[in-house]
Parts: sequence; structure tokens; C-alpha cells
Amino acid sequence: MALEMGRVEMWVCAKAFSSSANLGPGYDVLALAHDAYYDVVCVRKSEKTFVSRVTGAYEVPREGNNAIAAAEATLESLGADMGVEIWVHKGVPPGRGLGSSGATAAATVKAIELLLGKALDPNVAVRAAAEGERAATGSAHADNVAASYLGGLVMVMYNPLQVVQLGFPKVKFIVATPWFDVPEGKTGQARRVLPNEVSLSDLVTMTSGALAVVEGLKRGDSSLLARGLEMDPVVTPARSKLIPCYNEVYKAAKDAGALAVTISGAGPSIIILGDEGSAKAVIEKWKSCGIEASYKEVEVAKGASATTPPHV
Amino acid sequence: MALEMGRVEMWVCAKAFSSSANLGPGYDVLALAHDAYYDVVCVRKSEKTFVSRVTGAYEVPREGNNAIAAAEATLESLGADMGVEIWVHKGVPPGRGLGSSGATAAATVKAIELLLGKALDPNVAVRAAAEGERAATGSAHADNVAASYLGGLVMVMYNPLQVVQLGFPKVKFIVATPWFDVPEGKTGQARRVLPNEVSLSDLVTMTSGALAVVEGLKRGDSSLLARGLEMDPVVTPARSKLIPCYNEVYKAAKDAGALAVTISGAGPSIIILGDEGSAKAVIEKWKSCGIEASYKEVEVAKGASATTPPHV
Repeated sequence: MALEMGRVEMWVCAKAFSSSANLGPGYDVLALAHDAYYDVVCVRKSEKTFVSRVTGAYEVPREGNNAIAAAEATLESLGADMGVEIWVHKGVPPGRGLGSSGATAAATVKAIELLLGKALDPNVAVRAAAEGERAATGSAHADNVAASYLGGLVMVMYNPLQVVQLGFPKVKFIVATPWFDVPEGKTGQARRVLPNEVSLSDLVTMTSGALAVVEGLKRGDSSLLARGLEMDPVVTPARSKLIPCYNEVYKAAKDAGALAVTISGAGPSIIILGDEGSAKAVIEKWKSCGIEASYKEVEVAKGASATTPPHV
Repeated sequence: MALEMGRVEMWVCAKAFSSSANLGPGYDVLALAHDAYYDVVCVRKSEKTFVSRVTGAYEVPREGNNAIAAAEATLESLGADMGVEIWVHKGVPPGRGLGSSGATAAATVKAIELLLGKALDPNVAVRAAAEGERAATGSAHADNVAASYLGGLVMVMYNPLQVVQLGFPKVKFIVATPWFDVPEGKTGQARRVLPNEVSLSDLVTMTSGALAVVEGLKRGDSSLLARGLEMDPVVTPARSKLIPCYNEVYKAAKDAGALAVTISGAGPSIIILGDEGSAKAVIEKWKSCGIEASYKEVEVAKGASATTPPHV
């Protein structure tokens, strides 16, 4: 019995933070990790790869959990002919535009790296984690996973996937989340509302907007950042229609002094560059529309890293 | 007589360098000043604003010279109820995609600031210089003037115009120029060949490309810079058709080891991230197409600054 106990593998765990993708004009390219929420994923060696346990603040399915696809891609990248048993401790609310599946995938990749004592090239690691995104949303876009895996501000290039860590800007902002029921396949819907084509002049606006966001964050220039965050004539206007009372909420935040407001990822959460006064105005406005909402003041988060197993 | 001689105003002169706009995916947004060529513009007080003298390597008209519009906008911005006599010493070849009119406009603005001993806010200065661009090309795009005025790597936002100096990256590259006759209104033509709309997926590519160009330049990461410079599925392919033998020239440069090739501004000059071997291959290839061409190895240039009157 004692001998058998000795053979039980220990859980090896990693923590990965939530993130906001797009940041206005940086559609599918930019993302920022923040300390609003985090997932912990623990793994141990196993014959096959499966999720044995889900705990934490939010329920997600064990079957088809995107940790599985991320884990399989990671094991393959590491040349490991084995499986892992996975424990997902869910802290990032799913379906709110906060990179929930991305955090799971990033934590899964990092936990397996730690378990095997091997580090992947960041591009390979993010590609593996993006396979989790493909399982979760049908497209292997890598902005959220790159942010949760690398931390800070990141950019992504595709075909082939290449991620660039752009630094850990010192910025405080508000993440506000409405808790109305979102439909199944929300991210897919949020992609379908986008136009297939954009005008050349909108392209120019978005290019300079994305550059302004990055430069504003790097400099800590909130005025430049604010202008950049709102230089999106394409994605934010289209997606704002999926968020109840978005225009009223936007106006309430600006009236309360916010420098900029935009959608976090595919929504419905929003990012507010402003203080708690504007956050409270947003929550009030959503309430008056019949929608419960909450906010967190957040800072930029580090990348996925080792942690201890959660207390449950 | 001695008294009258004493009343002759002295020329006050400023120098501004050539520039390459766009840098691949940064259409109408990014530009880089370089030391391939420069203009000197001298001014002195006068009742009305006019160009009295044109010297230098290239001929440009006195009537309707874009220095006049830039000077008038500058004087108005400075609240100066006067005119200036202008001497344009032309060193940047016109019509080659090297920001020739932008260099004239930037030097004009700076020379008037020096003449009056007053400095403009950079955004106001570039807006004044861009009025020169409107006179020269029909559109007040400000990328070239911003680069020539501020120096280094710049980005531009429009409505309202805001320029951001992104630094003075240490990078060497080749500017190669074919000397075939370009049509009148070449820049306008180079704008008309562009599509009115681009796909959302091309937008994503160009956004990340522009970010990669800036980050690559800032880091001195030539691999990232090279990837960024060529991430333009829209503007460069359309405009390359206006440049004889572009595809052959592109291939010759890459075969000779260049990391990246793209069009400088509206063309026909090209930028090569590579050494003199690739430059020579380009010149040879253009020659075999019956086109005279030349190249310069360049570095990033400073902004417009005071200088002495040219020796002529």
C-alpha cells in the first residue's frame, strides 16, 4: 500500500491570466494579459490525455475541453509519447471576451512544459495553445493565448504563426463585464457580424490606431493610447450591436471622464481607460438596462508560470 | 549705398532629408527619413511669398512650387503678417517616391521658424508642411513631410492630424532608383491603382505587418523588420505594376541575399534590406530591362535643421 502510494504522480500546475484581445484597432493581432482573473491547470502523467477534474468559479465541460487539444499539441511538439491527466481550475469566466479558453490553453502548455522539464520555443508553445482555441472556437487565432502565455502586451502574425512580446506596460484600466446570457458559439457569431471588406481609408485608420495603442502603452502616454483604442471604424462598431446598451454604456463612461472605451476581445466585456467613477457609471447604466454587471480595476499581468495546486 | 546694403535681409536656411513612406504595410501612416538626398530651403522677409530662385541638382518650377503653400501655412500658423522670398536648393530627385516635395515643405517650415525665432508645435508644423503636399499631389497626406520634418521613423494619424516620432533606429538599407520617365501626376496615378476595399484578412496582415516594421526597427531585429516590410498584400502588389520589371528586380535582390524588398512611397524607387551585392544585382537587372538605375546605401536621418546657404 505504501509502495503504491509512492507511485502516485504529483500534480504539476501552472497559472495563466485573462486577457483582452484586439484593443480596438488591433483585430486578431494585439492582446494584453491582465490580472482580472486567472486559470490554474494541473497535469500529471497518464496513458491517455483527458480532463479528470474541473473545479473553480466557473463550470466548463470535461469532454471536449480545449485543454485537451492544447495538451495533445504540446506533447507532440515536445516529442513526448504519453498522455496527461488534466485538472482545470477555472477562474476566468467563459464567454465574456476575456480570453477564458486562451488562459486554459496557455496554462495547459506551461504545465506540461514544467511536468517534462522542457521549454518550448515561444512560437511553438503558442501554436500548441492555439490548437486549444481552434477546438474552442473553430479558429486557431492566437492573440489571447499569446497574451496569457507570454504575459504583457503581445502581437501575433499568422502563416506562419509568430508571436512578439511587446513589453509589460505599466497601465491601470477597468474591465467591466455584463452577465447577461450569451448564446452558444458567441465568438463565432462575433466573427460573422464583421464585414468581409473594409475601405482603404478604414485600413489606414486602423493601422495607425494599432500603432498608437502600442506606442501609447509603451510610453505610458494615456492620451495617445486613448486615441488609438478608439481608432476602429470596423470591428468595434459591428460587435457593439451584440452588446445590449453598448452605446449608452459607452456614453456613460465618457461622461464620467473615461479617456477611452472599447470592447474586450469578442465582447461582451469592455475595457475602460478611466477611473472607478467611470466604472461605476457603466455598471449603473447597464443596471438601468436590466443587465447585471461588475467591474475590476486591473493591471498588466505576467505570463503563464508555475504555481501550487489550488485549494478546493 | 552702404546704408542700403545694410538693409538687405540675410537668407536663413534649413535642410531636410529625403524619406521613404509606407514601408510596406504602413500605407499613408509610416515613413522613415534617410540620408540618401536632402533639400536646402532658404527664406528671407518679403512683402509677398514667392520662390525667387531654384538651384541644385534637379529642376522644379518656381511658380506653384509647393514651398509656397507650406510657407503660407507656416506664416499663418505663426501669426506672422508678412511674406517670405524663398530659395529652393533641390537635392532630392522629384517623382521618385523619395519624398521630394515633402523635404522641400519640411525645410521651408523649419527655415521660417528659424527666420522668426519661433518654434511651432510639431503637429502644427507638419500640418503646415502637409499643405505643401496638397499643393504638390492633391492630397495632404503627411507621412513624408512628418519624416523629413521630425527625422527618423514617424507615424501619422489623420482627422485631426497627429504625428508621433517613433525614434531614430540604427539601420542601414539600400535605396535604389530607376530613372525612366515617370508621367505627370505620378503620385495621383499611384493612388488610383489601389483597390477601394481590402479584405478583413488583408487588414489583419497589414496591421501586424506595420507593427512588425516598427518593432523590428526599434529592436534592430532585421528578421522581424524584413517580415514586416513584406506583409503587404494590397498596396505594394498594386503599385509594383507601375514599375517596369519590378518582379524581376525583386527576385534579383532576394536571390542576391536581400532580406526584404519593398516600394519607397509611391515608387518607382525601392527599399532593399540587404547589402551592396543585392543593390548591384538590382541595378544590373534593371539595365537588362533597358532602364538606367542607381542606388545609395543609406542610414536614418535627423529632422529638418538649420544650415548655411548652399554654395552654387
